[in-house]
Order: sequence, then structure tokens, then C-alpha cells
Amino acid sequence: MKAVRLHAYDRRPVLDEVPEPVVSGPLDVVVRVGGAGVCRTDLHIIEGQWEQKSGVALPYVQGHENAGWVAEVGPAVTGLAVGDPVILHPLATCGLCPACRRGDDVHCADSSFPGIDADGGFAEYLRTNARAVVPLDPALAPADVAALADAGLTAYHAAKKAARRLTPGDKAVVIGAGGLGHIGIQALRALTPAELIMVDTSPDALKLAARLGAHHTVLADGGQVDQVADLTGGQGAETVVDFVGEGGALEDGVRMLRRAGDYHVVGYGGTLSVPTIDIISAEINFVGNLVGSYTDLVELMDLAARGLVALHTATYPLDAFGQALDDLDQGRVRGRAVLVP
Amino acid sequence: MKAVRLHAYDRRPVLDEVPEPVVSGPLDVVVRVGGAGVCRTDLHIIEGQWEQKSGVALPYVQGHENAGWVAEVGPAVTGLAVGDPVILHPLATCGLCPACRRGDDVHCADSSFPGIDADGGFAEYLRTNARAVVPLDPALAPADVAALADAGLTAYHAAKKAARRLTPGDKAVVIGAGGLGHIGIQALRALTPAELIMVDTSPDALKLAARLGAHHTVLADGGQVDQVADLTGGQGAETVVDFVGEGGALEDGVRMLRRAGDYHVVGYGGTLSVPTIDIISAEINFVGNLVGSYTDLVELMDLAARGLVALHTATYPLDAFGQALDDLDQGRVRGRAVLVP
Amino acid sequence: MKAVRLHAYDRRPVLDEVPEPVVSGPLDVVVRVGGAGVCRTDLHIIEGQWEQKSGVALPYVQGHENAGWVAEVGPAVTGLAVGDPVILHPLATCGLCPACRRGDDVHCADSSFPGIDADGGFAEYLRTNARAVVPLDPALAPADVAALADAGLTAYHAAKKAARRLTPGDKAVVIGAGGLGHIGIQALRALTPAELIMVDTSPDALKLAARLGAHHTVLADGGQVDQVADLTGGQGAETVVDFVGEGGALEDGVRMLRRAGDYHVVGYGGTLSVPTIDIISAEINFVGNLVGSYTDLVELMDLAARGLVALHTATYPLDAFGQALDDLDQGRVRGRAVLVP
Amino acid sequence: MKAVRLHAYDRRPVLDEVPEPVVSGPLDVVVRVGGAGVCRTDLHIIEGQWEQKSGVALPYVQGHENAGWVAEVGPAVTGLAVGDPVILHPLATCGLCPACRRGDDVHCADSSFPGIDADGGFAEYLRTNARAVVPLDPALAPADVAALADAGLTAYHAAKKAARRLTPGDKAVVIGAGGLGHIGIQALRALTPAELIMVDTSPDALKLAARLGAHHTVLADGGQVDQVADLTGGQGAETVVDFVGEGGALEDGVRMLRRAGDYHVVGYGGTLSVPTIDIISAEINFVGNLVGSYTDLVELMDLAARGLVALHTATYPLDAFGQALDDLDQGRVRGRAVLVP
Repeated sequence: MKAVRLHAYDRRPVLDEVPEPVVSGPLDVVVRVGGAGVCRTDLHIIEGQWEQKSGVALPYVQGHENAGWVAEVGPAVTGLAVGDPVILHPLATCGLCPACRRGDDVHCADSSFPGIDADGGFAEYLRTNARAVVPLDPALAPADVAALADAGLTAYHAAKKAARRLTPGDKAVVIGAGGLGHIGIQALRALTPAELIMVDTSPDALKLAARLGAHHTVLADGGQVDQVADLTGGQGAETVVDFVGEGGALEDGVRMLRRAGDYHVVGYGGTLSVPTIDIISAEINFVGNLVGSYTDLVELMDLAARGLVALHTATYPLDAFGQALDDLDQGRVRGRAVLVP
Repeated sequence: MKAVRLHAYDRRPVLDEVPEPVVSGPLDVVVRVGGAGVCRTDLHIIEGQWEQKSGVALPYVQGHENAGWVAEVGPAVTGLAVGDPVILHPLATCGLCPACRRGDDVHCADSSFPGIDADGGFAEYLRTNARAVVPLDPALAPADVAALADAGLTAYHAAKKAARRLTPGDKAVVIGAGGLGHIGIQALRALTPAELIMVDTSPDALKLAARLGAHHTVLADGGQVDQVADLTGGQGAETVVDFVGEGGALEDGVRMLRRAGDYHVVGYGGTLSVPTIDIISAEINFVGNLVGSYTDLVELMDLAARGLVALHTATYPLDAFGQALDDLDQGRVRGRAVLVP
Repeated sequence: MKAVRLHAYDRRPVLDEVPEPVVSGPLDVVVRVGGAGVCRTDLHIIEGQWEQKSGVALPYVQGHENAGWVAEVGPAVTGLAVGDPVILHPLATCGLCPACRRGDDVHCADSSFPGIDADGGFAEYLRTNARAVVPLDPALAPADVAALADAGLTAYHAAKKAARRLTPGDKAVVIGAGGLGHIGIQALRALTPAELIMVDTSPDALKLAARLGAHHTVLADGGQVDQVADLTGGQGAETVVDFVGEGGALEDGVRMLRRAGDYHVVGYGGTLSVPTIDIISAEINFVGNLVGSYTDLVELMDLAARGLVALHTATYPLDAFGQALDDLDQGRVRGRAVLVP
Repeated sequence: MKAVRLHAYDRRPVLDEVPEPVVSGPLDVVVRVGGAGVCRTDLHIIEGQWEQKSGVALPYVQGHENAGWVAEVGPAVTGLAVGDPVILHPLATCGLCPACRRGDDVHCADSSFPGIDADGGFAEYLRTNARAVVPLDPALAPADVAALADAGLTAYHAAKKAARRLTPGDKAVVIGAGGLGHIGIQALRALTPAELIMVDTSPDALKLAARLGAHHTVLADGGQVDQVADLTGGQGAETVVDFVGEGGALEDGVRMLRRAGDYHVVGYGGTLSVPTIDIISAEINFVGNLVGSYTDLVELMDLAARGLVALHTATYPLDAFGQALDDLDQGRVRGRAVLVP
């Protein structure tokens, strides 16, 4: 089959002809790829930023946001048939460790991560295991939802955790109307009746956010903390969901938070730095957010099938992967880039 | 009546003869003081550290950890009779704001704080309102529990929040076996079956912690992070409750935390500084903790009445307040100092 | 002032001229009535069904769903000014008992219930206390929302409790598309992304339910259990909210419930009768629901102000109260009848 | 190997020589039995009461409360080695259905139940799958804990659910101090600081309950509802955990419940029958309880290893199974009977 493989860091990946993956373990599932999202993480992998962390042996196939159709299943797999349309949770988990037992499979003690530390979906076929496979509603085409498998799932997971405490009359600030934020705002709109305030540096991104469900938009032009204060009666918001996590976002975000509020950290890059006296006197919380669980992905696909969460995508054939990477690198992709073999 | 009043910052308070407080509002309650805790905050008040924050007009009566007997009640007060033994929640709240409505009275929008921004309990009588008054079990003497009204209540509140997620097999690290920590460990022992690991720099404080319920004690001599790793199978603890919040406690504490763990900030002074990548990749949380609610104080008094939480106190007559302040300042008080008029 | 008073059970109430209520306690609030809902309970009161339960002395003023404008406030009331538009929680609670302290004011140990056990809102003025008074958004006219104060609040409360466990992909059955049910369906639509299945015996009520947000409607014509099975993949629904609670609704409703599902009892009249083997083998729960709290009413008013919950009302002048009662008794009211003094 | 097999209903099982079970699926685990609890359900199986429900083909091996040592593992099993001491969750679950994904494996859509619908543990060896296997602390001998695997796990599960809402000062009534109840009371003691009131018809069982942690005991001699009222200030208990579920227990139990209280149904046999007006006016809840999850069993073993939950057992060699069944049938077993091959 054809597969885009990284042979060396800081070098452009190459379209190779390689053997198709086959089922080797009893719970293995081989999927014919229908779409594989191209993500900023893929650029960072090529640059070598993940070399130490993933320890993957080169050459290998990138692509960690994958959807397609079941092509082959291991002997212990139940509930899946060849041809079923599916989206793949990014982690292939063990199902036996304490975290998996609790449904908290993201903290699995023994998982693999196709596209990061094993061969991924920039190829015609991909191998994962049955614990990663979410059947798709017939209304959803794999290529249309593939890019929700990781970034979208992270945004949904944070929105779901944030929504738990939000009630009518509460305000939630969402910082960052980019790839994650524009899924996050749709998920929050579906999950909570709270009023949503989107903060971003781009007027265009704010326009999109308003169309996707933000009740208020605030341009981050220096006056954003004051504007959020105005929109919250001077009290701040019950919840801030920060999809940026660097630059001045953190400092601003903490000032937008109400007493007893929750600050959800999703984006990363910067350092959270808050005097403990401020944490205890306002009794505020900082909540870490990683990617969502298998169950979270099932729920996100339910919202997608019902049109409550939508993603704008630009598709590229597999051999145009170089164009996709360039377009992404140079900010020319609107929504998400998806490779379609 | 006799009252210890602060006339000027950085000067020793003075024992004055002043009029007794009287009921002026319909929900007012005047309490004959049975005991008033002397707290490190009182030293800071005298030093002027709270001058801006409290805005209190001098001279005024200090003492914010109070218990005694009801002496007079306003016309709208129900459920209290003259002579009832009581402990006082530190805040006199409004009962009408959204926070009070939710039972979250610590975040009351319109409260006063006797001993901080109004006359307190270093006196024969004290005025508060009915929303602050917790009836005491006959088994409890006011002087014995007064010092639980603020510091103890803060420790209980943090322990209660921490206990919510702890299950058998979980580990909880408690940093700091001082005044708050030694209440915190008893409260955790009563509220959760998790294994408790106490960390402190003082071998004596650790011995006391072991008697009060710590399953393991760890001397903070530089090897404490490794020792906690050993005690938690290399995973870290599900929960850290940090009663120190400064020095190296925060940095150490974060390293003692397991994936998806909760870090409870109670002590303060330092700055929490954590790269966002560490927050999201381990999906950890930082939880602020202020003093507990009225309901929390009722619960703490239940534990005290049943002998599940005990406090060592050293009592001083009201006119020995200077001795109490000196003893506290010079570390000569074992447990808590209490003025008994 | 004019007031509609009941002088004897089983007799039509009478329009009397009576003194206006005045503030007597420090937290009292007198409200000029802008609208008072006429409810089936009012018919039952006239018939004497509540005589024992309420113990009210005749003659007295009915009307327990009230909204209007603040006319006079007691000396301890804060945050309210004469002229403020307000809706009244049905209970005037004490604010001092353990339940009030926890925000669970519906279980207040010392409350009064104007319109049931004290003079109510079928009059020009009404007295309650400050703990019952919810300020209204300027977008809301008292007469338009008055009927949400009790029936609507009950429906919202049940919807809120039900929504806590519902996630995308879940199904919730709502039994009964009458007065409570049509608020309930709007509240569920605002609070949860679950799919909503409305079951009723009336095709017209189902049409209205579909307009108000039901995703599916099922005519209760004998095949309703099978139809719900079809709509839930043969599994039953995660949640049933039963606004009927009598006739065959309970028996049917339990058969519509999925394993580990929640059955919310709101309507009443019948008897819940389930073999314990069925409760434990399917591990199902039955959840009682009374009227909502003050905070619930604040939230419901937020939804109303934003157009997310609407109520159809038919208004009558105060002296047409007889017509209102007759229309209600004979099923001629569409939505809710409201007396407007 | 030797195995006790049921050849026909209403006939005494027979000690047969049969082939040892072998690993056939990738996640299979064969366990050398160290102890198998003999339970009242085993008597009911012999009487044919489970014939329709289980559909098991005779002859088969009974025994659904099993512990022992790993003897052989399938190729996909991780984290278990031959010789490891283990206790077995009663269900062998699929790990792939929505319930398993959420950690709610008791509601697995595709599980088997060794000892009920497949060969169980009244034998030298037993086959289950890796998802059922809980490693044991070295301090615990399989024969000592085997009987906790089902009945004890059910009691723990109910105690854990009940404990979630209990705070200091709350009261919990436990009805039934038999096999489940005496585990339940220990689990509640470990999990909650609430005061525990044990109700039973047997003075001896109540004495044991007091030793195991009940704060109060009430003899069910006709005055039990009044006694609970006295112990709860006339209010009733926040929680009732009913391990009986038949006879007058349900009617009494509901009368022991406080407003907004939770009634946990664990025992079964009778019918819960409550007017809906009583459910809604007191806003009470009825909570079904089935056996616990894998995670619950891990937690229960933690409590057992630390001596917080103990079980009295009477052991019998495998060929004395007839004696064990007779002793159980005739009430001669104190604690639980366990077959030790």
C-alpha cells in the first residue's frame, strides 16, 4: 500500500510503498483509512520535538486523527464487521489496568498511540485495537469527522468537564477561537445553557465563533479583561476554558475568573504562575485537560451526527501530503486539513 | 466589660473597659465569650499587615475564633435561647445573596468578619448575627473548641473537598503537620479510608501526626519526594493537601502527585508556578481552599463531640493576652492558645 | 384593597375589600401583584382537599404563583427597592435551619406558603419575606411569568435533576405533555443534549411538545411501551420523567426504563409498586421531585428572559376570578390562567 | 480434576472426576481454586429456581464466589503471572461494550457468570477471563476472602453508593445484620463518619453488628420505627440501606427515612409499594443496588487487607460439599461456608 513515512527528522516525509498492516493480536483491528487529519503536532513531529517523548523508530507512518472502514478484525473482536464505518480513538488501550477499568482510558498504563509512537493513518490502511474503534452513524463520512478524533475530542472533553458546574445565568469565557476553540464553543453550546463569551485576537475567528454559538465575542486587543468584567457584572465568569495556554492568555484569563471559579487549562506552551494567596482567597481552581475518553468520542460523534458539532475541512489526496503540510505551516488551511487516500 | 483592643499598629493591644455590645439588628446575637483563639493572624494584624485589607477603624477588639454562650438575641432570631453554648462561624453572612442561597456562605457578597473588620472575641461579650451561630453539643466546652472556628474549619473544609474523590487504596499526602495539618489529618481519617502520608520538617510534629491518624510519616529532609514515590508504587498520590503553600512545599508537592491527581492549596505565601504542558499532560488539578461554610462547622463540631477531632489548647485569662501573644510569637504554645475571659 | 377570599369550603370565593398587608417583620416584603397563576390546586383547595393539610383559617386569600413589583420592604431587607419587578418563590423560608443553610430551602423546617397556609396573591397586594423574592429581568412582565412560580418551578427542578446524568446519545422519556410537561420539555432541551421522547394521550399536546423541543413524540394509545423500545434500540431510556404519576403511567414508565436508569416521579395520585427483584436486577432508581429551590427559580427566570422557556397564558382581571376558575375546571384554558389585578 | 457438579434439579450434586479447564480464548485465565463460597443462591439453583434464568446445561459446576491462584493465562493477558493469588469478580465481562467502557462492567452487554451460567468454582480449577481477576495482597489467603466475591461485593457496592451523600451528623439505618449486612456495616464504618443504626430481629446478630461498628442497635420487635425516630430526633435517617427487602422491612424502612432521604434496596423478595404523593412530598429516593464493579472489588480487597472488613468463615474440604450445603440449609453456619479443594 501507499504510506507517507517520516525517514528523518527535519526532512519532508516520503510517499512509500509498504506492506499492508495485518492483524497480529486477538483484539487487533485493521482499518481502511477514509480520512486522516493533519495537525500542527505533525509539523512538530517532523521538526523532531517529539523524538525523545515518543521514542518511535524511523521510518514510520504519521497520522493520529483517523477514520475509515473496518478491513480485518482479530479473533477476539466482537461487535465490528468488515466494512463498518468507524472513527478511531487516538489511543489503543489495554482494557485491564485500573484506569481502563474505571472508564478513564486516557490514563491507561499500557497504551499505544498510532501516528505518534506506532504507524498511523497517513496510509491506505492502519492497525489499531478494538478498544479504539467507535462505530460511525451512517450520516457521517469518515473524511468529514476524522479531524475530530484528537483535537476535537480534546475540546469536547474540556467542554464536558466545564459544563458540569454551569447553570443558567452562569458565564463561561472561551479563550481562543482556533481549531480546538471552534469545536469547544459548539460543544459548550450543546452541553450547557450558560452564556458563552469568546475571546480571540482575530475578528474573523470571532465572527465564526458567533455563528457557531458564542453569545458574546471579545476582541483581545488589550481591553479584553475589562470587557469580560462588563459582560459579567464586574464579577468575572464562573468558568474560563483556555485553549491557548501561552502568551498573555493565562494572566488575562485568571483575571476574568469569578470567585470560586474554574479555570480549564487546555492549550499549553506557557507557565501558569499564580500567588497562592490569590488561589485561596478567591478559592479558584485550575483544571487540567487532556484528550477525551472513548466514551467522550462516542458522545462527540452523536453531536456530530445530529449536526450540533460541525468541522470545516480541506481534503487532499494522499500524494498531496506535502501541499497539506505546507498549507498548514503557512496558515492557508481554513478549518482542518485531511488526507484522503 | 473588659476587652483587649488594638489602638495603633505595631503597638501592643490594651485591656480597656468598654460598653458591652447590644443587639441592634433583628438577627443580631450577643454572645458571652467562653474562649477566643489567638492565631498567627492576630500577630499579623498588630504588625499592620491587614490594615488595607480590613479597613477597620482603631481602636477595635481582635479575636476571630470564638465560642461561648448566647447572651441576647434579636427579635427575628429563632432556634437560639439565652444560655445556649455555641461556637461562631467567623463570618456573619447576609443569607440573601446568591452564594448564601446556595449554601456557599463563605462567598457571601455582604458579610462582616468580627475580629478582623469589626469588634471580635478578645472580650467578655461579642456581637455577631444568627447566621454565624452553631449550637454546641453539651459534651463540648466553648474554650476547648473555640480555636476550631477558623483555622480548624479551614482544615476541615479542605479535607472534606479532598475526601470526595478518595477511595480505598488511594493515597493522600498531607504537607505540613502544624496547626491546620493536625486538624486536617484527623478530619481526613474520619472522612476517607485512603492511606494518609504526612510530610513535615519536624520529627516531633510527625510523631503527633502518627498518633492522630497518619498511616505513614515522611521527614522533609530533602528525600521526601522519593519517599512518597516509594510509598505510592512510584505513581504518586491521588491527592496532595498542602497546608504550607510556600518554601519548596509547592514544587515538592506537585512532584508527589499522580496522573489525574488533585492538589489542594490551603497554606499560602508562595507562588504556584507550573508549566501548562505538565498540567495538561498529567491532567492534574489545583484546588483552592478558603475557610469552610456554616454547614462545614456543624459537621466539624459533630466530629469533635464524638472525639474524632481533638485540639490541644493552652488557656490564658483575658488579662494575660500579652503573655499569649508573646508565647505564640516565640513558638512556646503547644497546640493553640485560647483567651478565656 | 380588593382580594378574592375563600370563606367556606365547597363555596365559590368572594371578591372582598380588605386592608392591605403591611410589613411586620424585619425581612418582610409587600409586593403589588402583577399576576397570580390559577392552578388546579386552587380548585382542590376550594373543594376542601387541603383543609387538614394547610390548617389555614378562613376566610383567606388564595393564589400561590405570584409575581409583581416590590411595594414595601422590612428594615433588614437588602438588595430590593420599591418598584423592582419580582417573582416570588412559593415558600417564605427561615434562612436559619440546616436545610436553608445548605441551599435546600424547599425542605426548610420553618416556612410559610402564601396562598396555601397564609394570604396569597389573588389580591392587589401580597406579603412574603425577602428570602422568597427573585428580581426579574426587565424583559419579563410579571403577569407573563407568574405561573412559572410553582408548577413551572417544579418542572424545572425535575428537569435539572434529570439532566445531571444525561449525555449525548442518551434518551429521556417525558410522560405527560400538560402544564408541567410542556415546561419540562423546554427545560430539558435547554439543559441537556439527550434525545427527548414525549409521551401523551393527546395528539394536540404532542404537536405542541414537538414545537417546544421534543425530538420524538409517542401517542399513548396502548402501544407506547413498544414505541419507546423501538426508539431506544430495545434498551429503554436512561431517564423517565413522569409528570403524570397515576393511571397506567407508572407501570408503563417503568417498562420504558433502561438498566441503571432513573425514574423521576413528579406527578402524583397513583402508587408506585415494583417488585424489589426488578429494582435490584436492573439496578434502577426512583427519584422524588418536589418544587425547586430559590436558586432553581433564578435559573428558570434566566431561561425565560432568554426565550428558552415560554409559557402560554390567558389573563383575567381580578373580578373575573370566577370565570378563570370555571374555565380551568372545564378545560377551556390553553396554557395557564393568570389573574391580573 | 475433582468437581462438584449438578446433574439434575432437586437432586444433590455429585463429586465427579472431570477434565481440567484449559485456556481457549486470548484473555482466558485458569485459576486453581483456593476457596469457593457456598451461598444461599446455591441452594436455590439446586431447587431449580434459576433454571430458566441461567439456561445452563446440566451437568455443570456450581460456585460463584471464588479465589485462588493463577494457573494458566491466555496469550493476550497482561499483568498476571502463574501463581499469583487472586480473587475473581463474579462476571467475566467483554471490555468492549458501552457499559464496560464507562467502568460500569456489571451492566456489561456480553458477560458470563461462572457458577451460574458456566462452570464455577466447586472444583480444583476454574476458567474465567482476565477482566474478572483481582490480584490479592499477600496478607490475604484466598479461602479467607472468597466469600466476599459476590455477597460481600454487593454489600460494599451499596455501602459505597450510600456513603457518597453522608456527612458527619447524618444517620444511616442498616436493615438486616445477616451475611450482607455484617459486611455492609463494616464498609459503611470505613467509608463514612455518619452514625450507623443497625436494625435486626436477632439480638445475637445485633451484638455482632455492634462489635463490627454499629453505633446503635435496634431490635425489630415491633417498636423499631419508633426507636429509630428517637435516635434521629424524630426526623428519620438520611439513608436507609435495606439488606432484607421483604417481609415488613420495606414498609418499616420507608417510615424510618427523613425528608430528602435515600432508600437503598439491596435485599429482595418483596414489593416496594409507596404512594407517589409520599415520594414527592418528602422528595425521597429509592436506589437499586446490584453487585459491585471490578473496581469496587479492588477497593473491598484493600479494606480487607487492612483489616477494616473481616468475614467469619467455616471451611469444608471439597468432598464435604454435602455437609456444607446441609449446614447452610439448616442454619448451622456461622458467617460463610467455604469449600477448599
